[in-house]
Amino acid sequence: METELSKELGVRHAIFGFTPFPAVAAAISRAGGFGVLGAVRYAAPGELARSLDWMQEHTGGAPYGLDVVMPARKVEGVSEADVEAMIPETHRQYVKDVLARHGVPELAEGEASGWRITGWMEQVARSQLDVAFDYPIKLLANALGSPPADVIARAHDHGILVAALAGSAKHARRHAEAGIDIVVAQGYEAGGHTGEIASMVLTPEVVRAVDPLPVLAAGGIGSGEQIAAGIALGAQGVWLGSVWLTVQEAELPSRALIRKILAAGSGDTVRSRALTGKPARQLRTEWTDAWDDPAGPGTLPMPLQGLLVADAVSRIQKYEVEPLLGTPVGQIVGSMNSERSVRAVFDDLTRGFERAVDRVNRIAGRL
Amino acid sequence: METELSKELGVRHAIFGFTPFPAVAAAISRAGGFGVLGAVRYAAPGELARSLDWMQEHTGGAPYGLDVVMPARKVEGVSEADVEAMIPETHRQYVKDVLARHGVPELAEGEASGWRITGWMEQVARSQLDVAFDYPIKLLANALGSPPADVIARAHDHGILVAALAGSAKHARRHAEAGIDIVVAQGYEAGGHTGEIASMVLTPEVVRAVDPLPVLAAGGIGSGEQIAAGIALGAQGVWLGSVWLTVQEAELPSRALIRKILAAGSGDTVRSRALTGKPARQLRTEWTDAWDDPAGPGTLPMPLQGLLVADAVSRIQKYEVEPLLGTPVGQIVGSMNSERSVRAVFDDLTRGFERAVDRVNRIAGRL
Repeated sequence: METELSKELGVRHAIFGFTPFPAVAAAISRAGGFGVLGAVRYAAPGELARSLDWMQEHTGGAPYGLDVVMPARKVEGVSEADVEAMIPETHRQYVKDVLARHGVPELAEGEASGWRITGWMEQVARSQLDVAFDYPIKLLANALGSPPADVIARAHDHGILVAALAGSAKHARRHAEAGIDIVVAQGYEAGGHTGEIASMVLTPEVVRAVDPLPVLAAGGIGSGEQIAAGIALGAQGVWLGSVWLTVQEAELPSRALIRKILAAGSGDTVRSRALTGKPARQLRTEWTDAWDDPAGPGTLPMPLQGLLVADAVSRIQKYEVEPLLGTPVGQIVGSMNSERSVRAVFDDLTRGFERAVDRVNRIAGRL
Repeated sequence: METELSKELGVRHAIFGFTPFPAVAAAISRAGGFGVLGAVRYAAPGELARSLDWMQEHTGGAPYGLDVVMPARKVEGVSEADVEAMIPETHRQYVKDVLARHGVPELAEGEASGWRITGWMEQVARSQLDVAFDYPIKLLANALGSPPADVIARAHDHGILVAALAGSAKHARRHAEAGIDIVVAQGYEAGGHTGEIASMVLTPEVVRAVDPLPVLAAGGIGSGEQIAAGIALGAQGVWLGSVWLTVQEAELPSRALIRKILAAGSGDTVRSRALTGKPARQLRTEWTDAWDDPAGPGTLPMPLQGLLVADAVSRIQKYEVEPLLGTPVGQIVGSMNSERSVRAVFDDLTRGFERAVDRVNRIAGRL
């Protein structure tokens, strides 16, 4: 599965794997794909450096990338505390009420929230980049708009390709104008932040909108046949996130959550603003229902919602409060029914791709 | 583009084209695809017979099918008037208010509504079938659940294959148990009634759920590359509806509507209950906004909503009231930018499919 882009990056398969776990990213790169480590959970630059050191030791020299969340517009001199102060008391009370209704225990005194949104703030993302540019990463992806012009320039100075996620052709064109190198077309069915256009329609639309820039198909892809579909739609590769959540190398915070993911069907996700304030696909839970409830106060805009719910999400995960327990995940969750190694998943992807190509060729009368 | 199903039906390409217009259905069959005529707009059996006579004369012996809307559950002895009587006055008043706000003129005295939902009622669908079984149709499709058992048996007695649309694997399994022959997997991005699972995820899921029954991929398919994607996902063919709306042979009721379709982007549709009471993808208009408005009375269940709005939709179309003018159409509307003949569209589909197969083979290292 070679494309111009996979050759440029020096990987055997144009399969990009996004994951918050270094062990998963490294295993994807070792398997012949391109592992992309999500940096959003690293609040302190030192933590990111430790993970990148680990990646260096465990990728066997294979290339890998980093995904940050960096808004293109800068808000000067705003701290996390300033943002915290903007959260209305009604919303804080609602969080308390929902947690109390489900009997969710408090965190112990001084126990930090494991789930941070500080990586969403530009200062934090910039300090992450200062760290990242010391490592031989090959790709810098931004999950939220185009990165600022100086970041793109700095990446290019380091020989790093810049990718950005887009949920519409218009959004993709803005990225191209900003000078990025790769567009990740994120379809409606994807886990995490998504728009409303499904991959079947979005992928070719984005390919045409940014031609000749390479496009990766994202959303609805977790099998070899879905990879073949993405390639047929004009993508130069595919971007998979959800499928890695249940690999053995992943470090999800809760066994109950893993069981929930394995049991969920394709209809058990929802696009909700509950987690970050922007629509993101995730497991539908009583937590998302509470935020989508017209009788509730509704969600706050990003980044307030993320700050508002950070501790609550930690508590729900720590105490495994089943009805509230969720995670960003795409509609392919319905096909994630076992825990396997990254290598086993990856081999299934490449073999399934070959089988799908055989099938297309038979129907096209080429075999 | 041959599959077992296309061979069984005796067509060159496994491309199924659903359309309410006999001239379009006939042209699809003549081009080497399989034209399926939608019967829902025929209130009187005589009208359907005239269209099928016309089809017989204009398909040049090529096979074609019929699509009806028949609920599996029967409501005995209920007339259209009985159903009309169930519509609340608040909803009738809301229709009047929205139309008045936009200055929509009344229909002339005795002028019939051009848009009927009578085809949605079982008695009407059955009288359509009595007509249809006199013609050599090869496929009977049902857009709303599995057809009743006796209808399936009758179709099979006539050597007619039965297809049913499904928006989920569960729904598809019910069809298979009912004894249908083909499942049309209708993705979220499709025009008309749709569920929430996108084609990229739904198609393989339905293929697995009803194996070995053949599945047609529907939703998001309007180009050869999208056909190749559907085939890669395991479908034995594709089912296209929206793409035929703007062909030269179509008889849409309004030039203004055609212009609106040609101008619309992929983001200009909405899944709304405004038209029938069930979620159906259509152009987003001030009409759909009025029904989706939390300050309004909301929609009625099927079939009440369809009856409620039938005359209003006719008036909006007749007087071409732009802000309210809409139609069921899928997200591929963004790629429908010119009026061409069925033959030109069809040739584009088959050529685009071949190009997509070439591309997949290059990336798979097979070329």
